[in-house]
Formats: sequence, C-alpha cells, structure tokens
Amino acid sequence: MDTTIKIECEEMQNVLYKLFLKYNFTEEKALLLAKEYTESTLVGVNSHGINRVPLFIEYIEKGIVNIVAEPEKRETFGAIERWDGNSGPGIVNATKCTKRAIELAKKHGMGLVALRNTNHWMRGGTYGRQAADSGCISILFTNTQPNMPPWGGKSSRLGNNPLIVSIPRKEGHIILDMSISQFAFGKINDYKLRGKKLPYPGGWDENDTLSNDPEKILANERGLPIGYWKGSALSIILDMLATLLSAGNSTYKIGLNEFETGISQIFLCIYPEIFNDKSLQEQLINEIINYTHDVEPMNVGDKVYYPGERSAATKIKNKKEGIPVDKNIWKTILDLLV
Amino acid sequence: MDTTIKIECEEMQNVLYKLFLKYNFTEEKALLLAKEYTESTLVGVNSHGINRVPLFIEYIEKGIVNIVAEPEKRETFGAIERWDGNSGPGIVNATKCTKRAIELAKKHGMGLVALRNTNHWMRGGTYGRQAADSGCISILFTNTQPNMPPWGGKSSRLGNNPLIVSIPRKEGHIILDMSISQFAFGKINDYKLRGKKLPYPGGWDENDTLSNDPEKILANERGLPIGYWKGSALSIILDMLATLLSAGNSTYKIGLNEFETGISQIFLCIYPEIFNDKSLQEQLINEIINYTHDVEPMNVGDKVYYPGERSAATKIKNKKEGIPVDKNIWKTILDLLV
Repeated sequence: MDTTIKIECEEMQNVLYKLFLKYNFTEEKALLLAKEYTESTLVGVNSHGINRVPLFIEYIEKGIVNIVAEPEKRETFGAIERWDGNSGPGIVNATKCTKRAIELAKKHGMGLVALRNTNHWMRGGTYGRQAADSGCISILFTNTQPNMPPWGGKSSRLGNNPLIVSIPRKEGHIILDMSISQFAFGKINDYKLRGKKLPYPGGWDENDTLSNDPEKILANERGLPIGYWKGSALSIILDMLATLLSAGNSTYKIGLNEFETGISQIFLCIYPEIFNDKSLQEQLINEIINYTHDVEPMNVGDKVYYPGERSAATKIKNKKEGIPVDKNIWKTILDLLV
Repeated sequence: MDTTIKIECEEMQNVLYKLFLKYNFTEEKALLLAKEYTESTLVGVNSHGINRVPLFIEYIEKGIVNIVAEPEKRETFGAIERWDGNSGPGIVNATKCTKRAIELAKKHGMGLVALRNTNHWMRGGTYGRQAADSGCISILFTNTQPNMPPWGGKSSRLGNNPLIVSIPRKEGHIILDMSISQFAFGKINDYKLRGKKLPYPGGWDENDTLSNDPEKILANERGLPIGYWKGSALSIILDMLATLLSAGNSTYKIGLNEFETGISQIFLCIYPEIFNDKSLQEQLINEIINYTHDVEPMNVGDKVYYPGERSAATKIKNKKEGIPVDKNIWKTILDLLV
C-alpha cells in the first residue's frame, strides 16, 4: 500500500509558514524556515525536511530550541570569526553564519565562521547551495551526538558529523552532502520498513559483528563509519576542528545531554572569482564531470553522477509532479496547525 | 625469511643526503629531501619513504622532476595564493607552499596556497606535521593519477587523492593522513606478498565484483573508494577543488601522461592562536581523545587510537631500534651511490 501523497511545493511552504507563525516565529524567520524545510523535501531529503518538522516543534515546546535567539559574533581575527548560536534554531543560525562566511570570503579571498551552541541545521546541503548561489566554494561540517563506535571500540562515541563541499557552477552547482556514517539511521530504517537488507554492512550487531540487517543495526545503534578505520579517524578530527575553532561542545559533551543540542559547526567559504578566469574554472569543472560521466557503466543502463546531480534532478521532478510525502507525516503537520 | 634490515635514522639520512648531492641537488635541497624521506620511513611509511627513492631518482633521470626548479607565486588575493611548481621535486614544492600557507594564516587567521604543476609530495603527513610544528591546523590534499572507478563505472577515472588534516598539540600533534581509497595499492601488494587476503574488499575483480583478493585487485587496478559511493563523490570534489583553485591539471589530464606528474595540490592552514585560549583548545582536544580512548574495545587487549598516534609510537620505536628496511631496497640505494 502506498502511504505517500504528493504535495505541491507552494502548498507545503504555505502550510509550514503558517505553522511557524503559529509557533511565534517572526515573519522573516517563519519564511526562512518554511522555505528551507520545503526545499530539503523538494530535493528528496524528507528525513531532514518535512519529516523532521514535528520533532523541531517538540524541541521548541521543550525549550531546547530558543525561537527568539539570534547568533552573535564573539571573537574575530582577519578572515576568521567565532559565533555563539545562543541555542537558536539551527537553520536560522547556519544561514546567518554562511552569509557571514561568504562576506568574509569576498573580502579576504576566504572566510571561516566557527559556530557554537547551535541546533541541528537539518540538511547541510542547504548552506552549500547558499554559498554556491553567491559564487562561493564552501566546506561545511557539524558535529553530532555519538552514534558510531570509534574503530575497535564497543560503544558509540563518534558523531556521523556531516560534511558538505560545494562548488558554484552555471549549469548546476556541485554539492557533496555526506555524513561520515556509511548509512544514515533514517535510511537504515527505510530498509527495515521495506523488509530489505542493506546492500553493504552498515553497523554492528549484538555480537560485535558487522551486519547488513537493519533490525540488528537499529537495535544496537552502532553505525559504521565510511571506510572503517578511515571514517573513524575523519569523524574524530572533524569533531576536534569544530570544537576547538568554535570553543564549543564536542560530541562527548553533546552526548551528555538527553537531546541533541549545543552542537558546533564550521562554515568555510572561498571566493574563486578573485581569480579572473571564471570561464577556465567552469571548463576545468566540466572536464572532470565529463570524464567521470563518460565512463562505461558496470551495469548496462546505469549512469555515474556528480555530487548534487541527482538532487537537482529530483527537484525538477518534484516541482513538476508534486513532492512525495508520507501521509501520516502530512497529517501530523496539519494537526499541529489546528 | 626476514628480508628486512635495520638502519639507524642518522645513517639513512646521511646516505640519502650524499645520494641527492650526487644527483646535483643543492646542499639545502639535498638535506631537505634526505630528512623527509628518512622521517617518512622513520614513522613507518616506507612506501613513501625509502622505498620510493629509486623511482624518484628515475624520474630525475627521465627529466620528469626538474631538480633546479623553484615554485613561483603566480596570483594572489587576500589570504589566497596560486603557485606554479614548475615541475620541481614534490617535497621541495610542498614544503615551500606549506611554509607560505602558515605565513598567510599567521597574518589573516588562515591562508591557502593552491599549487599546480608539481610532483608527488611523497608522505602528505609530512606537511601536516610542518604546519602543526608552527602552531597551525592544516587541511591539505592532492590529486593523483586515476586509480579507482567512479561509483557505478567500469574503468578507473578517480584519483585516490590523499587528504591530510592536522591539529597542533603539545603532547603530540593529531595528524590524519589518508587517501580516499580503502587500501593503498602498496598495502594491497604487501598482502599479496604475504599470501593473505585483505580484511575487507579493496577493489574490483575481472568480473566487476568487489574482491578482497590482492592478486585480482592488482591485476585490474581498480581500487575501491572508502564508503563506496561516498568516497567516489569525495574524490571527485577534491579533484575539482585542487584543479580549479590552482588552475592546474585534473586527474583526467594527469592520466593522459605516461608518468604521474603535473599534479595539483591545496595547502590550507588555520592559526588557532589568534584566539587567546590555547589551554582551553588543548583541553577540548584532550577531552575528545580521552573519550574515544576510554571506550571498551571490541576485542580484549585492543586499543583505540587517535589519528597520528601510531605513527608517533612507531617513530619512537624506530629511533631506538633502527628503521626496518627491505634489504633489496637498501642495496639499490647504496648501489645508486656508487
């Protein structure tokens, strides 16, 4: 039985806008939040779009997210700034810090904003797109609650620490948006609901054995980092960078809270237009895209994608046909509005 | 049969110094090269240390590496500079560009040098250490020849593009030095020589199936990126960044050459001492180390390491006991000296 319905992009944004107004956001912030939750769903990331709205509302009601808080600059030196998110909404804080990193990049060639005490930014690719729309390359990452064991360890003490890298491009930005876990827990749950095994191991079972069984992985909440020991090390070092540059909470400290809050994030932008060869840059990027695209697929009919290509295609499709949304989720949202 | 001998650190450096003088390097460059090849071997990375010296000499004789070339600044804006390596020795170019990125970081909070037309930098961790010794965080990467298929593709069109992240620390720097391939081909060859299978799949066999058989992987030269599709995307985007920021060669262009030369590299440094809380920063880093170290191991007696910890331990051991070197490699080096 199909449990999805299709919602028009404009309708989703209008409903969410009203919802956020109801929860006392200013018009400006309600619009930003509605836009970004809709956009993330539009590109197919429902888990960090519409599906996440009820939890966001719950966090507001619990006082974990402070709706009136504004991020504030605390320290600055040259091209680097340290900001405090004051427990405000993650989307509002991340949007403002990306904007600031873009400004710094346009002044110094590159700029970095380190943000502490913020909340979940939802889909990180949002800020990669924001930077690319302003002509900037971006390298962005966040720490998270612990959800993967460090390599060789028994319990989860690493965050999956999503990493975003974006490159502006006329025919469509390049946007890599990946967490350091092999599979997101949301994705593992999708496999469980469909009664399928993962195509590759995605976490540890109760016997400390790598498993592709979604039930066993979800029961243990011990995810697998990409590349085993390599992703484990990458997760640790991203947490260190976010924590020390922002003077904020590490995954360790975040894990002491019942809820994921007070996290640390990095917004690094580079402005490539400082070099007067924009057309050469586009040519070089396209050269790399063509080379990887032109490869013969292992399975006939398959296609190789560049980072961000599939999201862009999903966006076009969903804009035309409506955005597929789980019926129960949509009902929950509408009920919240009443 | 044990085919290794132990060479004292000082002896290795002296022999290499004489060798590089014989091949017409200036005293200063011969010393730098001898030091870095020795240091890489000392920390246990023979593949990019002593084992690589004969190939380096061959590249000099073939004119691929130009021993008198100096890297030159071509363009600059704020905290970013573009340099041309003029086909000089990779170690000389990378050392100079790291030094320059450190200077920029101390002036602007952070600095980036994009280098084109350079040669293999050998062990990338070398420059991570150089930055950390100067109090800087570093994020460094290089593109390479194609040696992994893009996800879903049949032939190798991605580089393994090593990525280095380092963080300075009093009790020992944190240094992540990893390529985007699950296993280096050198490591896969080690397994082959020992008649062992890889612990996890490391590449594709002739039937386009993932394999942990070193012979089959080496016969096909199609390595596996970390995290399957995720490492594939990461490799593509690192190549794009290195290529467009340096206006240099991409993995595609590098692959058109018979030899790996004319590669592109990024040297990004951040100077955390711009914030007056060095002791807090050390405390935050140690908090993360302790948290991940304190985890109960999956296998009794195992230990979890932070990035760079094992290299540091190997260095201490090899400094005391001598550096294990393959007898044939050492003989080849001594023969080159005659």
